[in-house]
Amino acid sequence: MTHFASETAVRSLGDGRFEGTVGSLWSIGDNPNGGYLVSIALMAFRQMVPAHPDPLTVTAHYLRPGVPDTPCDVAVEVVRTGRTLSTGRMTLSQEGKTRIEVLAAFGELRDAEARETDISIPAPVLPDPSICPERSGEEQGIHLPLLERLDIRIHPDQAKAGAAGEPIVSGYIRFRDDQSPDSIASILMADSFPPSVFGSHGVIGWVPTIELTVHVRRRAAPGWLVGAFRTDDLNDGRMIESGALWDSTGALVAQSRQIGLLLLND
Amino acid sequence: MTHFASETAVRSLGDGRFEGTVGSLWSIGDNPNGGYLVSIALMAFRQMVPAHPDPLTVTAHYLRPGVPDTPCDVAVEVVRTGRTLSTGRMTLSQEGKTRIEVLAAFGELRDAEARETDISIPAPVLPDPSICPERSGEEQGIHLPLLERLDIRIHPDQAKAGAAGEPIVSGYIRFRDDQSPDSIASILMADSFPPSVFGSHGVIGWVPTIELTVHVRRRAAPGWLVGAFRTDDLNDGRMIESGALWDSTGALVAQSRQIGLLLLND
Repeated sequence: MTHFASETAVRSLGDGRFEGTVGSLWSIGDNPNGGYLVSIALMAFRQMVPAHPDPLTVTAHYLRPGVPDTPCDVAVEVVRTGRTLSTGRMTLSQEGKTRIEVLAAFGELRDAEARETDISIPAPVLPDPSICPERSGEEQGIHLPLLERLDIRIHPDQAKAGAAGEPIVSGYIRFRDDQSPDSIASILMADSFPPSVFGSHGVIGWVPTIELTVHVRRRAAPGWLVGAFRTDDLNDGRMIESGALWDSTGALVAQSRQIGLLLLND
Repeated sequence: MTHFASETAVRSLGDGRFEGTVGSLWSIGDNPNGGYLVSIALMAFRQMVPAHPDPLTVTAHYLRPGVPDTPCDVAVEVVRTGRTLSTGRMTLSQEGKTRIEVLAAFGELRDAEARETDISIPAPVLPDPSICPERSGEEQGIHLPLLERLDIRIHPDQAKAGAAGEPIVSGYIRFRDDQSPDSIASILMADSFPPSVFGSHGVIGWVPTIELTVHVRRRAAPGWLVGAFRTDDLNDGRMIESGALWDSTGALVAQSRQIGLLLLND
């Protein structure tokens, strides 16, 4: 069993209620990664809709930070199940407080091989992962336990905050245990790169997510995923970052967009 | 009172329950526009969080088509209210069946004038509205009651299906009664242009939305809104369309993204 599978696992208590544990090794500083928290909620939903194993569209609202190394409850409501889609709501709570709200539709995705693509977004051309520096929390002055579980490499021209000269970030991502990401893991991976606004503005503070939406488009082929993200809209303290992930065959695996708050450092 | 305000109005029944009516003049063929249905749900939520009048991020899942000229119920749950944000869930039902599920965060937006923009997306340059043809359902062979309420003009090079040669659509939109759109109306307007995939593929069928997310970025200045939309990702029968709206001062009013099903005509 992969670390991701065992550390997002939940146990059914019946009536759409589940229990699990938020692990300690998926955090940015003291806060569990948002995509990781969503993954736990989605694992609960997946158990309730076995005909539809893959998230097609997932929206999460972040109400309060999660608490690492602490139990969690997930309440699932299946809103509708049809022939090709199941739609559900999930609420993940810890210590009696709601942490995230999720609204998602699941279906069945094809493998990367089985494509009938009419329109797609080409993957960016990046230097080989061996010459892309690992993501680090050093410039931000924070510890990144997440790097125990994820191997994240940043484009060498974008690795230092401010170096890109524009609000972009790109690079590679894979699990440390080298397991292929399943369709739920691609949501975690769409939320694991440094904020792209650091590319233009440097390390300007903490960027808590208000809401994240990911559309998963295919099951990924084995190997590295490539990610590329851009902040094209920042005003009044709120920013929107859009991006995508591609697998090692160049197939588009997911599109993501999030709105976050820019909290400036003193 | 504007047509939009009176035809999205809901009456509180207490305990987060509201009643209203889905009007008959906001439809595409026989189906009420998705952004219009969401607007009714959001009007209910707005009543419950008076400190936070503006939608910042709204996600709607479309479970079943709405029914025009028919009463509706909206059930609202305020998930969390904080200092700057209120988060809620809404369920809009008609004839005993859930039609849409909504998850949204509201706050307070600034007017277009009061900008502190760090990064933005420039508005496209379009020909004057007077030489842009009105949206028509003729090529699709459907009646568009929506055009009784919305004046929608399409870029002359994109007005005929297939003419653009790529999956894009752009143009102008405003209320027929010439009232300025409030922040909720910008969600309707982000969902009222023809599917951009018609630009490349012609009129290939019906494109029901699975999920729509709109980020509202500013209150719009009076006058036309400009909209531009692109489908950059179509595979396995599902397409993602992303777009934006700008007001008459050129300020970015909203970003939108939706995933839809492409149902081919016989």
